[in-house]
Amino acid sequence: MVLNVPRGFKFVGINCGIKKCKKDLGIVYSEKECLAHGMFTRNLVKASPVIYDMKLLQENPRLIRAIVVNSGNANACTGEEGMKNTVRMAKKVAEKLGLEDKTVLVSSTGVIGLQLPIEKIESGIERAVNLLTDDPIQFAEAIMTTDTAIKISYRELELSGKNVRILGIAKGSGMIHPNLATMLSFLFTDAKISYDALKKLLENAVDKSYNMIDVDGDTSTNDTVIVLANGLAENKEIVEGTRDYEDFRSAFDEINVELAKKMVEDGEGATKLIQVEVINAADEKTARKIARSIVSSNLVKTAIYGEDANWGRIIAAAGYSGAVFDVGQLTLYLSDGYRKVKVFEKGQGILFDEEMAKQILSSTRVFLTIDLNFGNSRAVAWGCDLTEKYVQINGRYRT
Amino acid sequence: MVLNVPRGFKFVGINCGIKKCKKDLGIVYSEKECLAHGMFTRNLVKASPVIYDMKLLQENPRLIRAIVVNSGNANACTGEEGMKNTVRMAKKVAEKLGLEDKTVLVSSTGVIGLQLPIEKIESGIERAVNLLTDDPIQFAEAIMTTDTAIKISYRELELSGKNVRILGIAKGSGMIHPNLATMLSFLFTDAKISYDALKKLLENAVDKSYNMIDVDGDTSTNDTVIVLANGLAENKEIVEGTRDYEDFRSAFDEINVELAKKMVEDGEGATKLIQVEVINAADEKTARKIARSIVSSNLVKTAIYGEDANWGRIIAAAGYSGAVFDVGQLTLYLSDGYRKVKVFEKGQGILFDEEMAKQILSSTRVFLTIDLNFGNSRAVAWGCDLTEKYVQINGRYRT
Repeated sequence: MVLNVPRGFKFVGINCGIKKCKKDLGIVYSEKECLAHGMFTRNLVKASPVIYDMKLLQENPRLIRAIVVNSGNANACTGEEGMKNTVRMAKKVAEKLGLEDKTVLVSSTGVIGLQLPIEKIESGIERAVNLLTDDPIQFAEAIMTTDTAIKISYRELELSGKNVRILGIAKGSGMIHPNLATMLSFLFTDAKISYDALKKLLENAVDKSYNMIDVDGDTSTNDTVIVLANGLAENKEIVEGTRDYEDFRSAFDEINVELAKKMVEDGEGATKLIQVEVINAADEKTARKIARSIVSSNLVKTAIYGEDANWGRIIAAAGYSGAVFDVGQLTLYLSDGYRKVKVFEKGQGILFDEEMAKQILSSTRVFLTIDLNFGNSRAVAWGCDLTEKYVQINGRYRT
Repeated sequence: MVLNVPRGFKFVGINCGIKKCKKDLGIVYSEKECLAHGMFTRNLVKASPVIYDMKLLQENPRLIRAIVVNSGNANACTGEEGMKNTVRMAKKVAEKLGLEDKTVLVSSTGVIGLQLPIEKIESGIERAVNLLTDDPIQFAEAIMTTDTAIKISYRELELSGKNVRILGIAKGSGMIHPNLATMLSFLFTDAKISYDALKKLLENAVDKSYNMIDVDGDTSTNDTVIVLANGLAENKEIVEGTRDYEDFRSAFDEINVELAKKMVEDGEGATKLIQVEVINAADEKTARKIARSIVSSNLVKTAIYGEDANWGRIIAAAGYSGAVFDVGQLTLYLSDGYRKVKVFEKGQGILFDEEMAKQILSSTRVFLTIDLNFGNSRAVAWGCDLTEKYVQINGRYRT
C-alpha cells in the first residue's frame, strides 16, 4: 500500500482459527498513547466488548495504545463468560506488547450467541504481535464478515504548516440501519487535538455518515466507531472555532461518509447504491427523517432493484416518515449522476420519459432528489437495493 | 356460500376493465342506513378516497348506505383529478341505487400515481348494481391486488336473545406494517349499537389486529378499516359496560385478528406465518414494542425462511425496539404449536435440541415466545418470512 499511514500506527491481520481460512484477528498498535473517543450501538442488548470499551473510554480516554478485533463471532449474548473473554483478549495484547492495563480496546463482530474460542484467539495474539507493519490492508481484511471488499478511506492535509494524516478502516454489510449499523469503524490520526474537539468531530461525523445508511433495517448489538489520535504530527493542538478545526473536520467528515457509502455499496446482496437527497426542507430534522425513511423502505429497495420507476413508493415512504411537509409542494427527481428526470411535481405524478428513467435505474448508482420547496435545510442518506441474494445470504448465515 | 350474512347487506364484484381479466370493482349495499366508523392510514400522503371517507364519516356517520371499491389503482398522488374521480365514483353509485348524496364510501387499492380509468369504472358501476346478491365472495375477490386468496371472517352470536351477525372482508398482502397496513378491511354487522360503543370497539380491535402485523415495514397511502352497522338484528342497542358489549367485542376482536393473520399468511412471497408473543412484560406498551420490532425484522424473517434457529437476531431486534427490559431475565422459546424448545435464558443462549428446533422451524407456522419475567402484560404480533419471491414480486410490480 502506497499511502502514508498516520505516524506511529502499526497494523496486523491474521487467521487464528475462528474462521476456517479467512483472516479473523486484527490488532492496531500506536507507538504513543492516544486520545480516544468512541460511539456505540443504541441497542439495549450490547455485546461484551461494547460494554467493555464504553467503560474504558470513560475512565481512560487519554492513554489508549491498541485495539484488538476478532471477526466471525460477535461475543454478544454470552453473559459473564463473554465478558471474561473480552478482558482476556485485552490483557493478552497488553502483556505481549508491554502495555499498561486498560490501554487496549476490544471489538468483536460475527454470529451472536456463541462463546469465543478464547485459547485460539490468545495464541493468535501471541503470533500477531510479531507481525505488526505500516500496512493496514491485512487488518482491514481481518475485520470483515460478509463484506466482499475491504473499506479504507484516507486523507492527508496541511494544518498551519504541519502535515496531518487521517486513516479510516471499517467493516459492515448486513444488519445495517440508521442509529449505527452492524459495523465497526476505526479512525486513526496523528493529529494533536483537544478532547472536546475530537468528541464533537466524531459525534457530528457519525450523524452525517453511519447514522444515514441502511441495508436492512436491523440495528446490531456490536456497532462501534472509535477514533484514536496520537499527536505525532506535532501540529498545534486543534481546538474548536479555528481554521485548523474546520479543515480537519472537512477531511474527517469526508472519510466517514466515504466509509459509510462503501458499507451500503457492499450491502448484502446489493447491486445498486441508492442515494436519497432531501433539499429545501423546513429544518434538518425533517430532511433527515424523510431521507432515512425512503432509503430504509423495502418497497423502494425492491423497485430500484427491479429498475422500475415506481415513484409512488418513494412518496409513500416520505409520507410515513413521521416528518411534516406539504406533498403539494414536493418535486421528485431520479438521476444516475449524469441524466436527470423529474417524475413528480405538486402532489402528483407527471408525464416523463420512461425510457430515460429506465436507463437511469439500470445504473449501479441511483440518486433520488426530493425537493420540498419550503426551507433551506438538507440531508443525504444512502442505502442499497434489496435482492434475492440478500434473502439467500441471510437465510443461511448461521448454518 | 352457506354463511348467514348480516341482514340487509348485498354484495357484488365484477371486472370493469382496470385489470385485464380479474375482478376489480366491488360494491356493498345496505338496505337500511348504517352507523359507520372508519380508521385510516397515518401516512401523511393519503389517497383521495381516504381523504374523502374521513370527511364523510365525520360529517355523516349515521346514514351510510354503500361502499364502492376498486382494485388495480390506488388513486393516490393523483391531485385534483383524483379527488374528482372519487366523487364521481360515489355519485354514480348513489344515482344508480337511488341513494342520497354523501351516503356512499369509496376505497381504492393498487398502483400509486395513475389516474383512474373513470369511464370504465362508471359503466362498471351501472352493470354491477344489477348484480347485487347475498353472497360476499365476489366482492372479496374484487378488492384483491397481489392477494392469492380471499379473506373473510364471520361470527354469529346471541345478544340478549337476539341473533346478531358480524362479517369481515379484507385484502392486503404487501406494504404491510404496524400502524395500518396496505390493507382494506370492511366489517358489516346487523347489530344495533351506539356510536360511542362502535367507535371504541373498532379502535380497540385495530390496535390488537392490523396494528400488530408486518409484511415489509411499509405503511401505505390507502389503509382503511370501516365498520357498518345497520341495526336490522333488532337487538337491544349495545352500549359500553354491558354483557352484550363484552360478547360483541369478543367476536369482533376475533374477526379482526383472524383477518389480520390471513393478511400476513398471504404476505407477498411468504412461506411461513410468524407469531411473536411477549409475556410477563412490565406493561402492554413494552410488550407491543418488542413484539412488533421482532416481527418486523428482515433478519428474523430471513432466518425463519432459512429455517435457522438464529435466536441472536431475535434478541437483537428486541434490543433495538426502544422498549426497556432486562435481557438478563429474558427467556426465549421456539414452537410450532406442538413442540416447544427453550433457546435463550438469563442473558445467554443455552444448549438446546438443534434437531427439534430445525423441525419446529420447518413448520408453516412458527411461534416465538419472549418471557420477560417481570410483570403481567402481554402482546402478540404476526408477520411472515422474507423470501426471494417477495423481491421478485416487488421488483416487477408496476411493469
